[in-house]
Amino acid sequence: MILTVTLNTALDITYRVRGLRPHASHRVTDMTERPGGKGLNVARVLAALGHEVTATGFVGGATGRSLRDQLAPVPGVIDALLPVSGSTRRTIAVVDTTTGDTTQLNEPGPVITSAEWSAFQEAYEVLLRASSAVALCGSLPPGVPVGAYAQLIRAARALAVPVLLDTSGEPLRRGIAARPDVVKPNADELAELTGAHEPVRATRDARRRGAHAVVASLGAKGLLARTPDGLWRATPPRPVRGNPTGAGDSAVAGLLSGLVERLPWPERLARAVALSAATVLAPVAGEFDRAAYEELLGRVSVTGEDVAA
Amino acid sequence: MILTVTLNTALDITYRVRGLRPHASHRVTDMTERPGGKGLNVARVLAALGHEVTATGFVGGATGRSLRDQLAPVPGVIDALLPVSGSTRRTIAVVDTTTGDTTQLNEPGPVITSAEWSAFQEAYEVLLRASSAVALCGSLPPGVPVGAYAQLIRAARALAVPVLLDTSGEPLRRGIAARPDVVKPNADELAELTGAHEPVRATRDARRRGAHAVVASLGAKGLLARTPDGLWRATPPRPVRGNPTGAGDSAVAGLLSGLVERLPWPERLARAVALSAATVLAPVAGEFDRAAYEELLGRVSVTGEDVAA
Repeated sequence: MILTVTLNTALDITYRVRGLRPHASHRVTDMTERPGGKGLNVARVLAALGHEVTATGFVGGATGRSLRDQLAPVPGVIDALLPVSGSTRRTIAVVDTTTGDTTQLNEPGPVITSAEWSAFQEAYEVLLRASSAVALCGSLPPGVPVGAYAQLIRAARALAVPVLLDTSGEPLRRGIAARPDVVKPNADELAELTGAHEPVRATRDARRRGAHAVVASLGAKGLLARTPDGLWRATPPRPVRGNPTGAGDSAVAGLLSGLVERLPWPERLARAVALSAATVLAPVAGEFDRAAYEELLGRVSVTGEDVAA
Repeated sequence: MILTVTLNTALDITYRVRGLRPHASHRVTDMTERPGGKGLNVARVLAALGHEVTATGFVGGATGRSLRDQLAPVPGVIDALLPVSGSTRRTIAVVDTTTGDTTQLNEPGPVITSAEWSAFQEAYEVLLRASSAVALCGSLPPGVPVGAYAQLIRAARALAVPVLLDTSGEPLRRGIAARPDVVKPNADELAELTGAHEPVRATRDARRRGAHAVVASLGAKGLLARTPDGLWRATPPRPVRGNPTGAGDSAVAGLLSGLVERLPWPERLARAVALSAATVLAPVAGEFDRAAYEELLGRVSVTGEDVAA
């Protein structure tokens, strides 16, 4: 099975309001709730692609109970989340139905004790032994050491389990030095890591920092991948409009499923780009539109570039 | 004991963010959660004043469990909330720490089935028989008939239990016709009910609609009360600055405790104004500052006016 790690899981709440105005009172006209955190989004897409997936990370409190209740009916995702004393955070997306704009409010997450972090590392090692690949996704909750992902990457590499890292800031900087198989920063995260704003150059810098492959997500422009097999650009056949929530997580699921299926890089990238675009097109944030995915998959353009660039 | 009814209980969540900007992403720097809905606020203040209080209304879902868990340790408040299949709503107050402004997001509440509404009415009649007074507070959740408060008022009056109504809009309009002992609208609610923007005139109109006493809360100006014993104005000794959340609920607790203690109207009004001001002054929204309350109590100005005005 594929393992996804979400240390800072979230109960993702979406509110619709008519016209968000600071200092005013708003009646929420529509509300949805779903299990969130990048790794759980990746797990859901992997399961939809037919993979066996186990989701681990931390969960706690009343919000954590809600998250587990809502995760249980998702077919193909096994819940191996570790209970903690703190409460799983909420994220609130406020969609203004008059403009379509989204305003985001993110709780920081529960404080993880050192005993909880140690217990997680032990459980993770056990899960790794049954895993064909692992994705480490998202922010770290308070209390988890900033070098956490580096530790988890070293544990995976010691067991020869391929590992993908999708995070930002200092956790990315520390993690990449532990030589993950793939990192998937977006353009901003890549620029913050390397100081280079030009993606071709920035991916080269990121590889030198330790990642075997760097797949940069460039929004509507698709992906730029610097891999041991070459430098590739994967571009959707047409611009898509919709809700980009979860598009990056779908790309991670595409890359990881392609990795365990031993697809060549161009096919992995085409799948990641098609899934990502099909997620933007889906009516529900974070889901992907299967018909759009299948239609787009054969039409993604993947071109090799001069690796010395 | 005193009974408080909160048909649309809420889990009140307060977020602090640095600068709320629509369409941006915000990290919540501080978060608090408390059982909410006007009737629960009233119950807490009554208990703090030394009264035995029973809180009823509807509660459900994971948010409802959190609400009950947080209500359980409040001394003096007995939880007689009725479980329903829907989920208790959340209200989110987003405090911008750079401006002090609060932006409010209110979920509508669970849909109450007609079986649940019938079950509530039965439980309410049983509780009424042990009650010295009852407060009916706040909005109605979806599914509860708009004439709900009128029904609850008639049931209380049939058992000679004094009843205070604190709501707005159509539920107030319907409720007042059932002849509650006291209504406590604010200036906006009173104007909406009567069409009169001048409070002295509007309270007279509201009494004619059926309320035995009308106590209008006029914000920093205190209260204007048109009662069977006369027309009174109660004014705090000085303007107070702070968080007005819950100030109206504290005034209701002051009026209701004064009613069951058979205090004359001027004393009830002085208590309500002092509690209200002490709530604005408290550092935690919805709590009251006891020292400020005791200091203010003797210094509230209560003046009789010509009842023919």
